Amino acid sequence: MDQKLRTDAERIVRHAIASVLPDRAVERALEGMEFPGRVFVAAVGKAAWQMARTAVDCLGPRISGGVAVTKYGHVMGPIEGVECIEAGHPVPDENSFRGTERILQLTGDLRETDTVLFLLSGGGSALFEKPLIPAQELQHITNQLLACGADIVQINTIRKRLSAVKGGRFAQWCFPARIETVVLSDVLGDRLDMIASGPAAADSSTCEQAVQIARDCGLELSARAWECLQTETPKALTNVHTRIIGSVRQLCAAAAEECRRLGYETVLLTDQLCCEAREAGSFLSSVLRSHSGSGRRLAFLAGGETVVHLTGRGKGGRNQELALGAAEGLSGLRCCVISVGSDGTDGPTDAAGGYADGDTLSELARKGLTPAAVLRENDAYHALRAVDGLIFTGPTGTNVNDVAVALVDIG
Amino acid sequence: MDQKLRTDAERIVRHAIASVLPDRAVERALEGMEFPGRVFVAAVGKAAWQMARTAVDCLGPRISGGVAVTKYGHVMGPIEGVECIEAGHPVPDENSFRGTERILQLTGDLRETDTVLFLLSGGGSALFEKPLIPAQELQHITNQLLACGADIVQINTIRKRLSAVKGGRFAQWCFPARIETVVLSDVLGDRLDMIASGPAAADSSTCEQAVQIARDCGLELSARAWECLQTETPKALTNVHTRIIGSVRQLCAAAAEECRRLGYETVLLTDQLCCEAREAGSFLSSVLRSHSGSGRRLAFLAGGETVVHLTGRGKGGRNQELALGAAEGLSGLRCCVISVGSDGTDGPTDAAGGYADGDTLSELARKGLTPAAVLRENDAYHALRAVDGLIFTGPTGTNVNDVAVALVDIG
Repeated sequence: MDQKLRTDAERIVRHAIASVLPDRAVERALEGMEFPGRVFVAAVGKAAWQMARTAVDCLGPRISGGVAVTKYGHVMGPIEGVECIEAGHPVPDENSFRGTERILQLTGDLRETDTVLFLLSGGGSALFEKPLIPAQELQHITNQLLACGADIVQINTIRKRLSAVKGGRFAQWCFPARIETVVLSDVLGDRLDMIASGPAAADSSTCEQAVQIARDCGLELSARAWECLQTETPKALTNVHTRIIGSVRQLCAAAAEECRRLGYETVLLTDQLCCEAREAGSFLSSVLRSHSGSGRRLAFLAGGETVVHLTGRGKGGRNQELALGAAEGLSGLRCCVISVGSDGTDGPTDAAGGYADGDTLSELARKGLTPAAVLRENDAYHALRAVDGLIFTGPTGTNVNDVAVALVDIG
Repeated sequence: MDQKLRTDAERIVRHAIASVLPDRAVERALEGMEFPGRVFVAAVGKAAWQMARTAVDCLGPRISGGVAVTKYGHVMGPIEGVECIEAGHPVPDENSFRGTERILQLTGDLRETDTVLFLLSGGGSALFEKPLIPAQELQHITNQLLACGADIVQINTIRKRLSAVKGGRFAQWCFPARIETVVLSDVLGDRLDMIASGPAAADSSTCEQAVQIARDCGLELSARAWECLQTETPKALTNVHTRIIGSVRQLCAAAAEECRRLGYETVLLTDQLCCEAREAGSFLSSVLRSHSGSGRRLAFLAGGETVVHLTGRGKGGRNQELALGAAEGLSGLRCCVISVGSDGTDGPTDAAGGYADGDTLSELARKGLTPAAVLRENDAYHALRAVDGLIFTGPTGTNVNDVAVALVDIG
């Protein structure tokens, strides 16, 4: 492993993640916000705990009650006046439904002067859920969507219609109270109705699209589920105000800033990456191959959310697959690719992402591993672990997609 | 369709291809070359006809005989003193074997003072072939390699060992005559032993690698074929001199030159692209999405040779799949992606490549087509044809891989 590149790469992604942590951002969003009546905090998503804590720090006794629902391992301690619940992600579980029920109780009988401070972050689709079909069927449908490689927009188009709270239905529930939504966005392009499936956003997706996705993915659905897919969501909401306080765009900008500070000429390729993870890694390695040996220190950045099509039963995540997909093209070069999820948890693993450089291919070979065989099994986690190519940050409290950084060093 | 972008895109790729046509390049290569005895021309590959014609134009009566073997449709007329033979590509056929036999007859009894002017271009692997196993088995193996998505390096590693002329064996045959090899390269990074499977180049691949590839791809092989894979090729040759007169690097440089002339700020991303074609298209469309609306006219170039994994039975080629893979991401933008093979024939089609812009997705939808469904069938040709998204150049006479150009216009 090239320790110099590894150190630079980790520094860049840690700086990028630090720039989109929710604390300061929520603070800024609350400045100047006015509350004529009672304030209830409903925080949902991977960043729910941090966002709720900051709201309590800022508003203190103005808050009449609160519930935060976040992913397992993401509650860092008690918050006064806020009930914190950990639940399943990416597949909703009993605790997701219980947490959602607690939020619905909290907001069940509101007046026009009341405000719901709705703190929303990625992962909300699974964590904030009251299904209109049996939970087991919902899980089965979510699994089918993930396995067929559906993107988050397609998954949410389906889930909104199978839910009593998504697709603007939570805002309907809170009416006539005002909803102040504060968003850390994990959806490329920041479409409000897609972030956490838009519980408080007028829905732009249609029943027609939902049915088409179900057909394209060959979903197995009950008659009840088919009926839900054909029941339309609200298309206009009068009681909602929304502001986005962080997104992948800021994540990439901060990464670029740190690249330049470390002396790399920096090119931001995209903040809307959405292709197959391993192929993005291959593409980035081709970019590095062509620029390697140019005598310049270069950085190429690509933010977004890649996808993984499951063909094996291994362990990994999209950032780990991206890094591993670069390993072959990087072989022998003074170059590296690092890719991390800003939430600190890549797929169902405890790693935030992966790292590969010019030595990775031969290090893997010494362990009897090839990227092609590992990726066929979707087992990037174990392969990268064997060559010290995993990046660990722990849960970060934020969630604004991923950033991949490709570096060329002199030499 | 955006006619302005389409016009620019076509102009850029046509200029790029013109810059790597074999005529001028062969002329330059022959300047100052000396021939103490007889000169025999052996031209092999998609550019064989142009290269042989230019040699005859330059050397005239100095040539004692010649054979050119090229792809069907690539002979543009008779060449005095040179027998022109059209044959099968990418799968070798009877005419490939007959053409090869004619070259072996021409060069069968040479003296030390004789020179073989060996004019080599892409496609030579299929067109110059004397198999050591039955032709039908060789075809079956080639088909298996293409279907499993093997890259050209892997395919050639296998084919060299199943051949009496590849992997340096043709140079051994011509000994003690001198071989002057003039190459239009279609192999990324220009590894001489990989271009047309290196008939006149010391072979750097090994039996061990060949066996590994056969195992990775799960090839079905006869006992005789297994035996061939384990028979080593020459590792040093004393009678060969080689010069490369064109490659994808020049193709990309010329495309960049024309982009700048048309007013686009231009970024050459890579000239060694090798990932899945449709994913490269998606990646480029993500780059365009992020830069669209910036108020700048931008061009991003990616040269190389992508791969296609066959899952359907449609018609298409890697450049057409790349363009179609960009269509969804481009939707609604004043951006386009064009991708062409410099040889003018993309896959088993009469098109050179494909084009997609901000209108393509909706135009496809009006025909009842989606990129995902079309790509699942590998049927990019018919889909692009329906929306006037095919690029036709006819056979160009050159073959130095592909170039993809992604443009952002103002507006």
